[in-house]
Amino acid sequence: MEIAFLNGEFLPKDEIKISPDDRGFLFADGIYEVMKWYEGFFYDLESHLIRMKRSIREIRINWPEADTFSTFAPELIKRNQLSDLTALIYLQVTRGAAPRTHSFPEPEVNPTIYAFVKEILPAGIVPGSPVKVMLKEDIRWSRCDIKSIALLANTLSFQEAHEKGLSECIFKRNGLITEGSRSNIFFVINGTLYTHPESEHILSGVTRKNILRIAREAGIPVKEEPLPVKKFGIIQEAFITNTSAEVTPVIAMNELTVGNGIPGPVTILIHKHFQAEIIALKG
Amino acid sequence: MEIAFLNGEFLPKDEIKISPDDRGFLFADGIYEVMKWYEGFFYDLESHLIRMKRSIREIRINWPEADTFSTFAPELIKRNQLSDLTALIYLQVTRGAAPRTHSFPEPEVNPTIYAFVKEILPAGIVPGSPVKVMLKEDIRWSRCDIKSIALLANTLSFQEAHEKGLSECIFKRNGLITEGSRSNIFFVINGTLYTHPESEHILSGVTRKNILRIAREAGIPVKEEPLPVKKFGIIQEAFITNTSAEVTPVIAMNELTVGNGIPGPVTILIHKHFQAEIIALKG
Repeated sequence: MEIAFLNGEFLPKDEIKISPDDRGFLFADGIYEVMKWYEGFFYDLESHLIRMKRSIREIRINWPEADTFSTFAPELIKRNQLSDLTALIYLQVTRGAAPRTHSFPEPEVNPTIYAFVKEILPAGIVPGSPVKVMLKEDIRWSRCDIKSIALLANTLSFQEAHEKGLSECIFKRNGLITEGSRSNIFFVINGTLYTHPESEHILSGVTRKNILRIAREAGIPVKEEPLPVKKFGIIQEAFITNTSAEVTPVIAMNELTVGNGIPGPVTILIHKHFQAEIIALKG
Repeated sequence: MEIAFLNGEFLPKDEIKISPDDRGFLFADGIYEVMKWYEGFFYDLESHLIRMKRSIREIRINWPEADTFSTFAPELIKRNQLSDLTALIYLQVTRGAAPRTHSFPEPEVNPTIYAFVKEILPAGIVPGSPVKVMLKEDIRWSRCDIKSIALLANTLSFQEAHEKGLSECIFKRNGLITEGSRSNIFFVINGTLYTHPESEHILSGVTRKNILRIAREAGIPVKEEPLPVKKFGIIQEAFITNTSAEVTPVIAMNELTVGNGIPGPVTILIHKHFQAEIIALKG
């Protein structure tokens, strides 16, 4: 039986119900976080916790017990018998349930804290496997640095890629490539690794941050600069990153082939280093 | 006892629960509509129905029974003993409940149809009463023409106004005034009525449309042109419109007074014509 978490309680997932007054349902007034469990630990739990606290601070949700996430997250893994497997935990925090009005509830209500886990099946995501992506104009809001649940633009964009048989929709804004609908994107030009700098137009990915560190540790020059779309032709490699897919080589964008159309050496090297880090952490 | 509507059934509102897998809760993957009941009829139900169908078409939610809204909406009013009162009905349509993934559910699932009503109390909104508003940069997505539930940017912006003691947050984008967080905005310059044209940066308000018609019928020249922020100083009148607040005069924006700081003659005339139309419809 699948167990989920709601407001401090572990419950059978199919017994969990949300109030129709929940501001997550009515206003997308909430944030989320996804962490990956590697047969015994969450990868960089601390960064996820810091980002989650930043998200709730930015939209001014008051959840004084935010640190309890580091306790109930592994407990939820355990209660679902996933301790020895690879899994994802999804956490969502909304402003809570209150009569519908745009302004925040007065008096304040308790936030809704909801989490569930799912096993990553061997047949699912394969980090390292090359993918093709599409590129389109970013229609999202201008606070993409907040990991909000207002994801309609992301789902519509991802669906467009999905229907073309592509694995991700990459966004451009003002002529610059920013990130994907659910990933960050990196490029390699003459041995240097490029990715969009932190800004209000991208989510500061936890994997993004660790890949930048791993690249620097491996002696790869790194530049946090946006790639103009018109310079796409000069790149030799590209890859996307996120918590579940780790490092995923991009071999084509729209009708353009990336480099030789196969994962390039820098991408492979970085992915190997990331995997080595996971293995080392498994101990 | 408050009765709400969920997926074809009339139920006590406190018995209505939403699945945590609902894409409205996880992705803001849905749309909404608000209509006003005037002691016996919905004002311009047809326009709301057309807009609602456009919204679901734009985000590709499949709800073949959308027309049933015109039947269950008055029934919901009746079941809540609001037939002889003034009330609002809120309708929300989401893509339904499915395991969380950005792409649309495969196979397709039934959409979630949820509606509730609330009485407009005499102590609440007073159409025609002047308000002060703030102006700030539009941080929303670029498909504001879709009445989506991805309203986090709207709630954050409205809250900012609310905490300053102001009644609405008006947006500017690229130096042009577009609309409010939950209203359209009109300006009067030398007897001519101005409002932002229909575009992806504003919601095509039902009240907006009817006010434009009423103004034309009253012989007031109308221009659907955006007002540049830098021209704000030349306006003599401003008002905001939406379904619940109808015509609401704006007497100040940020630190700037509009005209003489009292509702102007064109605003008052248009509001009177709107009210006369309601009285005529009451028959």
